[in-house]
Amino acid sequence: GYARIDTHRCARTGVPEVIYCEGKSIPQIQGIINRMSEHHSNILATRATWEVFEAIEKIGLECQYHEQARIMVANPRPVEQVGNIAVVSAGTSDIPVAEEAAVTAETLGNHVNRIYDVGVAGIHRLLNVCDDLFEANVSVVVAGMEGALASVVGGLVSCPVIGVPTSVGYGASFGGVAALLSMLNSCASGVSVVNIDNGFGAGYQASLINKIAVNKAPPE
Amino acid sequence: GYARIDTHRCARTGVPEVIYCEGKSIPQIQGIINRMSEHHSNILATRATWEVFEAIEKIGLECQYHEQARIMVANPRPVEQVGNIAVVSAGTSDIPVAEEAAVTAETLGNHVNRIYDVGVAGIHRLLNVCDDLFEANVSVVVAGMEGALASVVGGLVSCPVIGVPTSVGYGASFGGVAALLSMLNSCASGVSVVNIDNGFGAGYQASLINKIAVNKAPPE
Amino acid sequence: GYARIDTHRCARTGVPEVIYCEGKSIPQIQGIINRMSEHHSNILATRATWEVFEAIEKIGLECQYHEQARIMVANPRPVEQVGNIAVVSAGTSDIPVAEEAAVTAETLGNHVNRIYDVGVAGIHRLLNVCDDLFEANVSVVVAGMEGALASVVGGLVSCPVIGVPTSVGYGASFGGVAALLSMLNSCASGVSVVNIDNGFGAGYQASLINKIAVNKAPPE
Amino acid sequence: GYARIDTHRCARTGVPEVIYCEGKSIPQIQGIINRMSEHHSNILATRATWEVFEAIEKIGLECQYHEQARIMVANPRPVEQVGNIAVVSAGTSDIPVAEEAAVTAETLGNHVNRIYDVGVAGIHRLLNVCDDLFEANVSVVVAGMEGALASVVGGLVSCPVIGVPTSVGYGASFGGVAALLSMLNSCASGVSVVNIDNGFGAGYQASLINKIAVNKAPPE
Amino acid sequence: GYARIDTHRCARTGVPEVIYCEGKSIPQIQGIINRMSEHHSNILATRATWEVFEAIEKIGLECQYHEQARIMVANPRPVEQVGNIAVVSAGTSDIPVAEEAAVTAETLGNHVNRIYDVGVAGIHRLLNVCDDLFEANVSVVVAGMEGALASVVGGLVSCPVIGVPTSVGYGASFGGVAALLSMLNSCASGVSVVNIDNGFGAGYQASLINKIAVNKAPPE
Amino acid sequence: GYARIDTHRCARTGVPEVIYCEGKSIPQIQGIINRMSEHHSNILATRATWEVFEAIEKIGLECQYHEQARIMVANPRPVEQVGNIAVVSAGTSDIPVAEEAAVTAETLGNHVNRIYDVGVAGIHRLLNVCDDLFEANVSVVVAGMEGALASVVGGLVSCPVIGVPTSVGYGASFGGVAALLSMLNSCASGVSVVNIDNGFGAGYQASLINKIAVNKAPPE
Amino acid sequence: GYARIDTHRCARTGVPEVIYCEGKSIPQIQGIINRMSEHHSNILATRATWEVFEAIEKIGLECQYHEQARIMVANPRPVEQVGNIAVVSAGTSDIPVAEEAAVTAETLGNHVNRIYDVGVAGIHRLLNVCDDLFEANVSVVVAGMEGALASVVGGLVSCPVIGVPTSVGYGASFGGVAALLSMLNSCASGVSVVNIDNGFGAGYQASLINKIAVNKAPPE
Amino acid sequence: GYARIDTHRCARTGVPEVIYCEGKSIPQIQGIINRMSEHHSNILATRATWEVFEAIEKIGLECQYHEQARIMVANPRPVEQVGNIAVVSAGTSDIPVAEEAAVTAETLGNHVNRIYDVGVAGIHRLLNVCDDLFEANVSVVVAGMEGALASVVGGLVSCPVIGVPTSVGYGASFGGVAALLSMLNSCASGVSVVNIDNGFGAGYQASLINKIAVNKAPPE
Ligand SMILES: Nc1ncnc2c1ncn2[C@@H]1O[C@H](COP(=O)(O)O)[C@@H](O)[C@H]1O
Ligand SMILES: Nc1ncnc2c1ncn2[C@@H]1O[C@H](COP(=O)(O)O)[C@@H](O)[C@H]1O
Ligand SMILES: Nc1ncnc2c1ncn2[C@@H]1O[C@H](COP(=O)(O)O)[C@@H](O)[C@H]1O
Ligand SMILES: Nc1ncnc2c1ncn2[C@@H]1O[C@H](COP(=O)(O)O)[C@@H](O)[C@H]1O
Ligand SMILES: [Mg+2]
Ligand SMILES: [Mg+2]
Ligand SMILES: [Mg+2]
Ligand SMILES: [Mg+2]
Ligand SMILES: [Mg+2]
Ligand SMILES: [Mg+2]
Ligand SMILES: [Mg+2]
Ligand SMILES: [Mg+2]
Repeated sequence: GYARIDTHRCARTGVPEVIYCEGKSIPQIQGIINRMSEHHSNILATRATWEVFEAIEKIGLECQYHEQARIMVANPRPVEQVGNIAVVSAGTSDIPVAEEAAVTAETLGNHVNRIYDVGVAGIHRLLNVCDDLFEANVSVVVAGMEGALASVVGGLVSCPVIGVPTSVGYGASFGGVAALLSMLNSCASGVSVVNIDNGFGAGYQASLINKIAVNKAPPE
Repeated sequence: GYARIDTHRCARTGVPEVIYCEGKSIPQIQGIINRMSEHHSNILATRATWEVFEAIEKIGLECQYHEQARIMVANPRPVEQVGNIAVVSAGTSDIPVAEEAAVTAETLGNHVNRIYDVGVAGIHRLLNVCDDLFEANVSVVVAGMEGALASVVGGLVSCPVIGVPTSVGYGASFGGVAALLSMLNSCASGVSVVNIDNGFGAGYQASLINKIAVNKAPPE
Repeated sequence: GYARIDTHRCARTGVPEVIYCEGKSIPQIQGIINRMSEHHSNILATRATWEVFEAIEKIGLECQYHEQARIMVANPRPVEQVGNIAVVSAGTSDIPVAEEAAVTAETLGNHVNRIYDVGVAGIHRLLNVCDDLFEANVSVVVAGMEGALASVVGGLVSCPVIGVPTSVGYGASFGGVAALLSMLNSCASGVSVVNIDNGFGAGYQASLINKIAVNKAPPE
Repeated sequence: GYARIDTHRCARTGVPEVIYCEGKSIPQIQGIINRMSEHHSNILATRATWEVFEAIEKIGLECQYHEQARIMVANPRPVEQVGNIAVVSAGTSDIPVAEEAAVTAETLGNHVNRIYDVGVAGIHRLLNVCDDLFEANVSVVVAGMEGALASVVGGLVSCPVIGVPTSVGYGASFGGVAALLSMLNSCASGVSVVNIDNGFGAGYQASLINKIAVNKAPPE
Repeated sequence: GYARIDTHRCARTGVPEVIYCEGKSIPQIQGIINRMSEHHSNILATRATWEVFEAIEKIGLECQYHEQARIMVANPRPVEQVGNIAVVSAGTSDIPVAEEAAVTAETLGNHVNRIYDVGVAGIHRLLNVCDDLFEANVSVVVAGMEGALASVVGGLVSCPVIGVPTSVGYGASFGGVAALLSMLNSCASGVSVVNIDNGFGAGYQASLINKIAVNKAPPE
Repeated sequence: GYARIDTHRCARTGVPEVIYCEGKSIPQIQGIINRMSEHHSNILATRATWEVFEAIEKIGLECQYHEQARIMVANPRPVEQVGNIAVVSAGTSDIPVAEEAAVTAETLGNHVNRIYDVGVAGIHRLLNVCDDLFEANVSVVVAGMEGALASVVGGLVSCPVIGVPTSVGYGASFGGVAALLSMLNSCASGVSVVNIDNGFGAGYQASLINKIAVNKAPPE
Repeated sequence: GYARIDTHRCARTGVPEVIYCEGKSIPQIQGIINRMSEHHSNILATRATWEVFEAIEKIGLECQYHEQARIMVANPRPVEQVGNIAVVSAGTSDIPVAEEAAVTAETLGNHVNRIYDVGVAGIHRLLNVCDDLFEANVSVVVAGMEGALASVVGGLVSCPVIGVPTSVGYGASFGGVAALLSMLNSCASGVSVVNIDNGFGAGYQASLINKIAVNKAPPE
Repeated sequence: GYARIDTHRCARTGVPEVIYCEGKSIPQIQGIINRMSEHHSNILATRATWEVFEAIEKIGLECQYHEQARIMVANPRPVEQVGNIAVVSAGTSDIPVAEEAAVTAETLGNHVNRIYDVGVAGIHRLLNVCDDLFEANVSVVVAGMEGALASVVGGLVSCPVIGVPTSVGYGASFGGVAALLSMLNSCASGVSVVNIDNGFGAGYQASLINKIAVNKAPPE
């Protein structure tokens, strides 16, 4: 009744359905993961609380919990981490969202380079890590408040940049809207954007791009 | 005085500075392109009118004008078009923005497959062209009104999808905001978004990704 | 003093007044239902909590509580469920709102077909249930995030579609605004919309339409 | 290239594709209508200007122009107008949108009863026409400014009400947003809403409902 | 330090300063009322909780608490209630705000006629009380959701109408914005508006107007 | 067909229907005024252009045009101007809206005292005219930009204040929203507000209040 | 890992990095302050709770807590307070934000003159303290609701004014947006604005300006 | 009648009233400047068109017109330009607003250093001009699109920074709102903000601060 699992998705997109835990009851999440784990490993559940994690353990399924990232991985198995994704954060307060991106990408089999707390209020911190940025196949830039970091990184590198605005801030940050608008209006050219606090979506798309870099497309 | 051309950009990002014509006077645009054409070819000028085109011709520079895309290419030279970028539009009215993406990508040396007028009001039109979608390294999806096409494409393909909301619509479309929010909240996982009507930005990022697919990254 | 029950409404519209519980005190709700139950059965109270349910039981009135739907039916009596209303949900998290629509319609004497978790991220799930959709006299489509499902269903069926945007999502979903705008701007033609999370309103209007289908209007 | 006409739509929904003229060039509209007229009659083109009308006449196609409604009907043929749809307007300034609904419904074969300028500032005007309202199978209520008329009609009748907010007003009407929000939050129960100024959408859905009333569904 | 009581206000406007309790600490409120009670009686404190009430009693000041209205009156003394102010509410859920208006007006020495739960979903309820409305010198109309009641009352009466939008509702009511915009765009002519949930402000201005009616201005 | 004149309104509210000219065609306005002038004099038409004025003269009706106020008075007759309404403007640019209020009030038979260009950037200008303010039965305060003048006046006087936000300003004035919000949140107590640029509505309500002051209500 | 302290900032701007505590874990704050206190004194931590304060004391660092201002100063040392900054508040409820500005400025070595509760509802309170205002080198004006005080002060003084809108208010104050827009649209000329509730930012910039006044710039 | 010139302002703030030309008629502007020029020189008129300029010349007053800045200076006289204000622009399209700031400051007697087209898409352009920035007493930073430049400059310098968001951009720039929010949420500490496109306001406040630097305050 309550869930029609998209079992075909893995064939279609290479990744099984990802469970968004908010708004789902514990029994629903248990049921969904139980059925999925018959066919899949490294099942990602995002916005998962400790309570969700314990409920999955209780029904006898192996799983890992990444607390800062609020991600649970059910039926985990080791996976080679290839290529190079830079996950960059503006401040310390943006780290939970950055971790959601990083853990998503790692679980999907990518090597991640975390570059945290390099916001534009002290631009030399970013300039100091330019070499790390230049080595990445794709960059995820996570920033709240005015979100200016995405533009500055976008102007420095030649790889695609995925901006993740965060809800860090107050007042006229309007829960991340200021950073979102800032990134959408970036004057740097290679920047696209995902939803506010959507570290998962950025990590997922970064994985798609990084995998392209590693596995050369067939000649045309 | 009025322009500090980022001549270093080409070295940094592989593409010379792109001129955004809105808000610039004709003499300013002439001056900028004149200086740039000493070093660069295939100089992109976006949001260019016929008046801009004629002003550049007048100062003796060779250039091409793509009317629907509102793009002018100054100092044009033939460039091999490699890889495969799908540019998908929901309706006929979205074509100018789709063309901005397509012409940008072609000028930057990419092969583009145009798939127009396949919006979700008649979903079979999209299902009929699935094979074209599956062959692309990256898809640009251009849609106004409710912008649902980005999610549907995102659920079908395994390549990255870049959504471009357009200002096509009226009333509660709020100049493209409805489509923008729709794409930002896509329930499909590999979708990122650029600004409303920013075909240029989508074509540019699609080029970065498509080039990665063509030129395999060095093994790590 | 506090309530002027619209006792005439049942004669006028065929349905007695429906009690919206939010913002009313327990004694007020008790008083209103007590007076209404002298004349009516199957009294609907929406946005009802367990506390409301218990308070009504306490004053000796028979009632049923539909927890997911947050609907209480006071003075319930069996009612034939006729016709065919499809209630469609995009995700598992949208089910509470879908249930509000379904329980409302059932209480008003309609047959409901629940079609849940068929969102556009995996469009084949929807295509698999097309026959169910074609049999309905009217469809209620419940979706959060980008709300694209209403347009896709609207493009497939020939019956009226009532879209219900939900507040499922985060960030730029703005508590359901993204889905609301998406549905209002639907490129499919037979779609109208009710307030965010207003499963009740959609179920109510669907009932009006389904009853028309069952009881043919007098010839003109 | 520019249009992929949904020729299958007529089979699916009973109505051929409707052309939204804004954002399309004259040659595009000519091409689309030309191809459609090989298979269909009574082709609706909305938001059509006199210029569009003349361009269609010029290529030798028969067509009618409804100026207030901004609707052009290409390849017109007589169609029986059955049932009863009430199209109600709050003020004189709302009539163009009301006409878009009325002409759409009439072209699709419905009988329309126009009830104009009965806004709530003088409620007796509405009460005087109650009998007309009671006879309709479905009502379309068109109102700008505060859009209160939809709620008042919704509280009076037992048929479904489709609200159309209009952009009539100034200042804090925000181009129809005030009326839109008003209708979405209607305290009357059978009201659903379409986009601001979307007379077409309301007329279309009203037609679907009215046709149900006329052609009783098969017994279940 | 923390408060500069506007002791001159009473001379200027006829009413001593009114204390808005939100955002003030208990000791601050105690200090302010203590000083004011040396000179004034019937001191109004709005948005007062039970905790505030008890804190004032504790420092030995006489006071009354109106729970629904969230108003505390310190140093109360009997005052003649003259004239006639109608306070009208759309639904039962709007009563707390209506009571804020009524208690404010009564404390300032006005006779108040409460007319509650006469919203437009059942317009006959309002028509039944027209005579009460006609007798008032000024009407305060309190409504949430779509706020249509202010326009309907405004079209019926010849006295000034002060609309008070309430935050009753959900989804696209946006915490009272729908009702606020509705009232600001009223098609009836004698309507002005105060802030969302600002029963106090409406009661205060109604008092000013009602007092004018009672105490005829000197001939000019 | 197009207009259902509310001929009863004059009996009900003391003022015949007022014609809002925007969105009405010239023939519609001619028709409406023609019919109204059979029964009424001093017919107000707001938002009237010179073109409207000439069209009314052409059909042989006497009328006056107040250019700054954009008000036309058809079938004018002398009327005694009683009482005292202060119409206060913050700047020179707000005068057209202030004039709409003043001319409305004068046409309805009120004495108006214009106090223009006394905005808060130079507060002494306002303090210099305090005596004028104190003599008014009601004040209309017209201000754009930050609209602070309404609060300052509201804090000075003991009569009701009606704030009219204007669309004067740019950028974050958002077409008058800044002034509107400012006035709705006034920290002064006797202030209510009408729509942005709605000088008519303010003049109308001020007239209702001023008439109360002049014609003392019967003792109760 | 989690923090890249901008140790160079003090050399660059004269003030060490300031810690924004929201969104940081206690161990993160402890770690950051611990490292910073090796080089700096008078380290500012804003939006600090009692819990943060106790956690810093626990690791053996000296610190002071300013409760109203929610500011913690780690490694405090006496600092001469020079010049003159006026911190002005409209109401008592705005004091916490005003204190954030005042304590920031004092910690950075400025003399602060607190002028509280002088809002425009009683303008004479402000006029009474004009001399205090005239003596300041720079004024910080803190106001919620309609935020009019910034404009009135800006029109009175010849020093720069920094407006701080606060979130004090309800309904259409939208969490401080009304005051923010009001201040941005100030009709007085020397006013700039910081984020809603950003007392820190205003105190910081006021300090920069006041220091300029005290330490005359070198002759050019 | 139409203007109450604040002749006292010059004494109070050191600068005579500045005329905002939008919304004023030509005769009004002529009248105001005529009266002011009896007492003042270097009278600033902002948002002035060529038409305004010619109208002032016509009545025999000397004046200068700064076209890009849209500023007219009536009764001009030479004034020493002291101190050092940096006016920084992100792009070429932002220059008109930057010029409004620069010309305002120069007219008020300040030395201005123009640093244009140094936006963050090519951060090295800004780093190249750091020495110019370090020499300024105050910086005005003018940027549209995402407005990130204000934060980057704010993080580099130790002088106060005044951000001016511009309406340069499209789509989700919302006429400058993106840049405005970006600057209000700056993670750099010494940044305050003026209204969108308000170059005048920034130049004016910069002048106040620069004059403080030049004329040391008297010792306290
Ligand atoms: N954190 C997340 N943010 C956005 N989308 C997500 C997130 N986690 C999962 N999803 C997507 O949300 C969909 C879940 O829908 P459902 O579980 O059916 O309600 C899946 O298709 C995922 O791709
Ligand atoms: N300038 C105005 N602003 C707001 N309402 C107005 C204005 N002028 C007239 N009205 C009202 O608008 C209504 C006219 O609506 P309509 O039937 O479209 O003419 C009348 O009831 C008037 O009271
Ligand atoms: N969940 C709901 N959403 C929207 N409207 C509702 C809901 N439940 C009841 N209503 C309507 O709200 C009105 C109740 O108003 P009240 O007088 O406050 O009880 C009734 O007329 C119902 O038709
Ligand atoms: N159509 C466009 N949309 C968004 N950005 C653009 C567009 N065209 C050019 N740009 C970018 O805008 C910047 C131009 O800024 P400016 O210095 O004003 O010319 C360049 O860095 C481009 O990368
Ligand atoms: Mg940091
Ligand atoms: Mg099409
Ligand atoms: Mg699912
Ligand atoms: Mg009318
Ligand atoms: Mg009720
Ligand atoms: Mg003036
Ligand atoms: Mg106070
Ligand atoms: Mg440039």
